[in-house]
Amino acid sequence: MLKIGELQSKTGRRRELLRLNAEAAYLVAVDLEASPIRFALTNLVGDIRFRWEEALDLRLPLAMDKIASGVEMVCRTLSRQERERVLAVGISRPGAKDAEGRVTAVNLGWRDFSFDENLKSVLSLPFFVENAARSFVLAERWHGRAKNRDNCIYIEAGKGVGAGVVINGEFFGDKVQVEFGHITIEPGAPDLCKCGKTGCLEAIVSAPNIVRQYADRLGIPEASSGIQIGEVFERARRHDPDANAVVDRVARDLGLAISYLVALFGPSMIILGGYTVAAEDVMLPRIRTELAKHVRDWAVPYELTVSSLGVDIGLKGAASRAMHDVLNNSELLKKLCMLDRPKGALPQAKKRGAA
Amino acid sequence: MLKIGELQSKTGRRRELLRLNAEAAYLVAVDLEASPIRFALTNLVGDIRFRWEEALDLRLPLAMDKIASGVEMVCRTLSRQERERVLAVGISRPGAKDAEGRVTAVNLGWRDFSFDENLKSVLSLPFFVENAARSFVLAERWHGRAKNRDNCIYIEAGKGVGAGVVINGEFFGDKVQVEFGHITIEPGAPDLCKCGKTGCLEAIVSAPNIVRQYADRLGIPEASSGIQIGEVFERARRHDPDANAVVDRVARDLGLAISYLVALFGPSMIILGGYTVAAEDVMLPRIRTELAKHVRDWAVPYELTVSSLGVDIGLKGAASRAMHDVLNNSELLKKLCMLDRPKGALPQAKKRGAA
Repeated sequence: MLKIGELQSKTGRRRELLRLNAEAAYLVAVDLEASPIRFALTNLVGDIRFRWEEALDLRLPLAMDKIASGVEMVCRTLSRQERERVLAVGISRPGAKDAEGRVTAVNLGWRDFSFDENLKSVLSLPFFVENAARSFVLAERWHGRAKNRDNCIYIEAGKGVGAGVVINGEFFGDKVQVEFGHITIEPGAPDLCKCGKTGCLEAIVSAPNIVRQYADRLGIPEASSGIQIGEVFERARRHDPDANAVVDRVARDLGLAISYLVALFGPSMIILGGYTVAAEDVMLPRIRTELAKHVRDWAVPYELTVSSLGVDIGLKGAASRAMHDVLNNSELLKKLCMLDRPKGALPQAKKRGAA
Repeated sequence: MLKIGELQSKTGRRRELLRLNAEAAYLVAVDLEASPIRFALTNLVGDIRFRWEEALDLRLPLAMDKIASGVEMVCRTLSRQERERVLAVGISRPGAKDAEGRVTAVNLGWRDFSFDENLKSVLSLPFFVENAARSFVLAERWHGRAKNRDNCIYIEAGKGVGAGVVINGEFFGDKVQVEFGHITIEPGAPDLCKCGKTGCLEAIVSAPNIVRQYADRLGIPEASSGIQIGEVFERARRHDPDANAVVDRVARDLGLAISYLVALFGPSMIILGGYTVAAEDVMLPRIRTELAKHVRDWAVPYELTVSSLGVDIGLKGAASRAMHDVLNNSELLKKLCMLDRPKGALPQAKKRGAA
């Protein structure tokens, strides 16, 4: 059972505690940050019941029917009766949204793309979209290490780099998430970023750029290197000097960039995700050392850790986004309350004034 | 006359527009950021009627009786009747305050100093204290270039370096102001900061550090250089290569640091204060060039300018702080309303139910 809050009747006379059976309904969670893109059918607290994956063709923009067919695939496991209990789709997406709601996500091949508009024409279920870094923070606060942390930062270090910032229990801005990967962390460095500038944090510490730097050092053309990010860390563990030089640079830049977030936002917890999870032993001590160089003595004490949610963080975050929005949508909340009523029970007619 | 808001009576029946005569009462403004420290008697909108200065002995911590005597000096210009109209003291101070309210301000010789507590014992007037960077933003929004700007940043570049950030019309955190000067802007740079670390923004771009770098380049021991900050800029204007090298470095680091604030906070206006005001011609074009290198194409458009409030910004900010707090303090607001009543007018007794 999931206690989600108190309900105040309109007359203010009675207070009811709203308790929901987590199995009363389903959500579909979609994670577009990962490659392949991932789909899951979850219960109301984000426990995964069924999974589906769709390969991403990096040469083509991600098409809407691929998302629709993934949603259909996870719903197909349900009986017709159960399908009526699917409340909403939560979607975690990479990229930045402009003031007109158009999304630019280089990894998905979208440029100024009206994602919500286009998705409407292929999805019949209500859907809620959140950017990846913010989804990840939602997941960490709901299921992960940031429970009860009102001031925390999640840093995604994967294909892209972003940060989700929560201050006093509220999301801080959209800017941080979008721009954190594009602050100039090494002015004058030759590393060219997808954004067109050089020396961006993402241009040095994203997973593809770690592989690029390592391949460069070995003199292997990047396209033909076939090196996986995990191999770079594995070689660093085995004292390969080239791998260690790359990892040192990445830790140095990440530590410096995180020190800016510590200085400006004062989080009590910083959670690292992406490749750092599997490379905790190699990355975390080095980032800690770098961070300690820059954080002032008088800073608020903070904890630096890696995510405990593994590869499911995007799905958990998407489910969390959907559930939060269901609770704030009167139509969906009504539907949910109806579904949660014991079978056969009919709404009781209330007679005012009857003794 | 100053329209400051609407007053809702407790019964909710009547609405009165509160209009105040700006000359109805006085405030004392104290600026501890400047050297010498400065005092002013102002009207309710911060117009300065009388000034006083107290020299700062940099070898000794600033003593409370020096503040008390400054306040006394500006009040001494008033008749006994007028003195009763002094409502409150507003104080703009440098430094950082910890969770226990203790202030550390290196320039004033305070370390973990219970400023408010100690001030209480020497000041009989109500007083309100604000840190300098936030006072400056208050002043800019009340009197300066940030009128009607809900997203703006004021950057103080003087003896110290700090930033006051306003987002959606609200102050953002205390952290930014305190820490902006101490982000590591040049990792590995030898410039030692007063905070004990190296490569801090303040260690490179504060006024004393600009003089230090210039004296270093000339091979003059800093203590005996006698060079003023204005001379460095004047020599840069005359194409002195040493002065220009220093100014270029300062602009480079300031531009980079400001780009981080642009990326994370998305202000529509950035106002520079301190020495940049008198050196606008030398500094502003260089900072603009540097900033443009780092700000991404998709950033919210912003305006970069220098403060128009001159040396009085601290006093204006302190008066603004005091006035804001008077309006939020029921006792002081009552006193103010009594003072503003036309002479001789007596409070009218209201008879409920009388026709």
